[in-house]
Amino acid sequence: MASVDIGVGLLGYGTVGSAVSRMLAESGDEIERATGHRLRVVRALVRDGAKQREFVPGDDVLTTDFAAFRDDPRVDVVGEVMGGVDPVDGYVRELLQAGKPVVSANKQLVARKGAELFAIASAAGVQLRFEASVCAAVPVVKVLRESLVAENVNRILGIVNGTTNFVLSRMAHGATYAAALAEAQSLGFAEPDPTDDVTGADAAAKMAILATVAFGSRVLLDDVEVRGIDAIEPAHVAAAASFGMALKLIGIATLADGAVDVRVQPAFVEKAHPLASVEGSSNVVVLRGEAIREITLGGPGAGGLETASAVVADLVSVVGTSGTGFLQNDACWRELPRLDPAAWRAPFYVHLAVADRPGVLGGVAATLAKHDVSVAQLVQHLEPVRAALDIVLHEAAVGSVEAALDELSESPEVLARPFLAPVISA
Amino acid sequence: MASVDIGVGLLGYGTVGSAVSRMLAESGDEIERATGHRLRVVRALVRDGAKQREFVPGDDVLTTDFAAFRDDPRVDVVGEVMGGVDPVDGYVRELLQAGKPVVSANKQLVARKGAELFAIASAAGVQLRFEASVCAAVPVVKVLRESLVAENVNRILGIVNGTTNFVLSRMAHGATYAAALAEAQSLGFAEPDPTDDVTGADAAAKMAILATVAFGSRVLLDDVEVRGIDAIEPAHVAAAASFGMALKLIGIATLADGAVDVRVQPAFVEKAHPLASVEGSSNVVVLRGEAIREITLGGPGAGGLETASAVVADLVSVVGTSGTGFLQNDACWRELPRLDPAAWRAPFYVHLAVADRPGVLGGVAATLAKHDVSVAQLVQHLEPVRAALDIVLHEAAVGSVEAALDELSESPEVLARPFLAPVISA
Repeated sequence: MASVDIGVGLLGYGTVGSAVSRMLAESGDEIERATGHRLRVVRALVRDGAKQREFVPGDDVLTTDFAAFRDDPRVDVVGEVMGGVDPVDGYVRELLQAGKPVVSANKQLVARKGAELFAIASAAGVQLRFEASVCAAVPVVKVLRESLVAENVNRILGIVNGTTNFVLSRMAHGATYAAALAEAQSLGFAEPDPTDDVTGADAAAKMAILATVAFGSRVLLDDVEVRGIDAIEPAHVAAAASFGMALKLIGIATLADGAVDVRVQPAFVEKAHPLASVEGSSNVVVLRGEAIREITLGGPGAGGLETASAVVADLVSVVGTSGTGFLQNDACWRELPRLDPAAWRAPFYVHLAVADRPGVLGGVAATLAKHDVSVAQLVQHLEPVRAALDIVLHEAAVGSVEAALDELSESPEVLARPFLAPVISA
Repeated sequence: MASVDIGVGLLGYGTVGSAVSRMLAESGDEIERATGHRLRVVRALVRDGAKQREFVPGDDVLTTDFAAFRDDPRVDVVGEVMGGVDPVDGYVRELLQAGKPVVSANKQLVARKGAELFAIASAAGVQLRFEASVCAAVPVVKVLRESLVAENVNRILGIVNGTTNFVLSRMAHGATYAAALAEAQSLGFAEPDPTDDVTGADAAAKMAILATVAFGSRVLLDDVEVRGIDAIEPAHVAAAASFGMALKLIGIATLADGAVDVRVQPAFVEKAHPLASVEGSSNVVVLRGEAIREITLGGPGAGGLETASAVVADLVSVVGTSGTGFLQNDACWRELPRLDPAAWRAPFYVHLAVADRPGVLGGVAATLAKHDVSVAQLVQHLEPVRAALDIVLHEAAVGSVEAALDELSESPEVLARPFLAPVISA
């Protein structure tokens, strides 16, 4: 076996960085057999050089000085496991410009700064990989970029946020939203401030990255229509079950007629669909194309060790493909328009709280019909002083459905803001 | 864009070959963007040069003369989509020896001749890839070899034969074995002679390949313990449902305490396990390791277009990694012993038909206990003139359970050969 010949520099050396360092050390033989090279962490940029670390690197590895890190000739390839956009964005730019390939685990960085960073990487002729930025150890980026190069992937459906899936799984077993979220926090799935998860912002960044890679056209965070789970009520979860479906937070990226649509929202998923049975904090992504029909990839979407596994896989891929021109370039090669968000079509579920009076049902049906929205299934429940309507609509443009619901909301017979979710068929 | 600079030769030009040829032509731009190269089929070896083809290659492409194919200087990389072991084995040897990288879709070739072929490939310094030989378009080989290089995968569970999964899915909905198999044949999932599928031989070849790649030690077909689905009765399927499980044909490869065990057999899968909900002809593989916990990969496991997609992915990977030393070598780097098949441990389900007489249940329990096998759950049904016992056992060595069942079979109170299946927990 050869001596260490590829030096790895890490931006950040917390839980993920320590795990990367340990995996490179412990799996050195495996990596050398696969690539012909031996990798080891030789330098790591940290904020506090005196802090205790889970896996102690060698002497002279930790530094708090970015210039020393950047100019260290022993660093051949960089793993970015620091997180955040500032100051990491500037660090990564300088490193790419200095000709160092970079592997990033940072979805905010890739989603927000991808265009500029890939341009810099291309100009410098070095790779920028980002498997760990989406769904941790689930190798969805590699599969999209390498296995499916010749495949026109036209839809991605995903459960890409483990916290919200855990909360919805618990609600399906009877918990309230507040209790389920508190349980997720006590188990460490959810941050003390869970805003990014429950509003869908975290899932939106991941779907923007996946859609960019799959469709070859840049999808910005602002292009993603986002609704979170914070308005979900137990009645919606129960309604899903009563229709033989599961309520999930689903990322949906679609390429149709040359336009791109990316959205994250609660959806009703038919039980036979692979996403319906995803429980707890797992992530699952379903890729659809002509030749492959549907490929499903699933696994833990978060966690230090899981994320480190993806960083190591990317480091190995950089080493294994350097000098071949393979996949160094930006995934984007065209500029597709964004579909008018209101034109996106799906079957939908609607929950309406209405007055329990004669003629109300007829009025609802007439308003829907006026907007070209037709009813597939309808269940009316009597509640104290009011009635609840659970309706599944045939496929329609979301804009038409929303216009119908806006009109219904103005009626004195509709007692609360309607709840709307697309239906994902098996 | 450059002109064609990588010539592809195909061994065989049937459904899969035609689809590969068409995909390379139609996705030329995508492949060039990813690899910097343009690929096209320039030569194809066929048995009948006059036969109609689904996608017509250029003039002068088809040949019936292997020597002309082998010596064609325009062929830079070879796709083997001919199938069978003879004469393909000889062709592939000569091509590797001549320095041509080969991509094969042929599980029998890889499972039976892998050791010699990889040795030849390594000696010649060229790649031999085989993604399409297992689970068609599902990129499980690439994920194992590239994304999980540093991961010690220690178990693979898989539904890797679509025909048998279709048959068992239909039986779960009430069909008999014969009716379900006839339906699979009429839909084209099962061959007119379904022996390789229903006996588990097809699944065994795929599991041997996956275990070889995952564990780095050669697993031969003869090393795989195989039981098919031909002895499955509706009562077994019903018993699975009554225990909240699904009866599936499962491939199980385990690396434990430095020994390898690979088996294919009907198993009871708990409903919450990802394999329980796999319906119809899909393939799903679950990889377990320390850092990744479990990664699930699923999709169509057969079909011309699906297989072609994997062949194209391998061709692209060969082009994208040539000259780097990345993964050209044999996946095997050690020789692990085979676990004594009788020592493999699992919880088990047992179905016993017994005489409806006092004392029979006590006798069964005593015999199990004598062999250190203990009962977790037991249901007794009365049937005309006899009783049926459905038993779930705690984890035990399969050899102990089989010894207990052998002893029970000799008892006059046990009226038919007991049925045994491991239980896969969620």
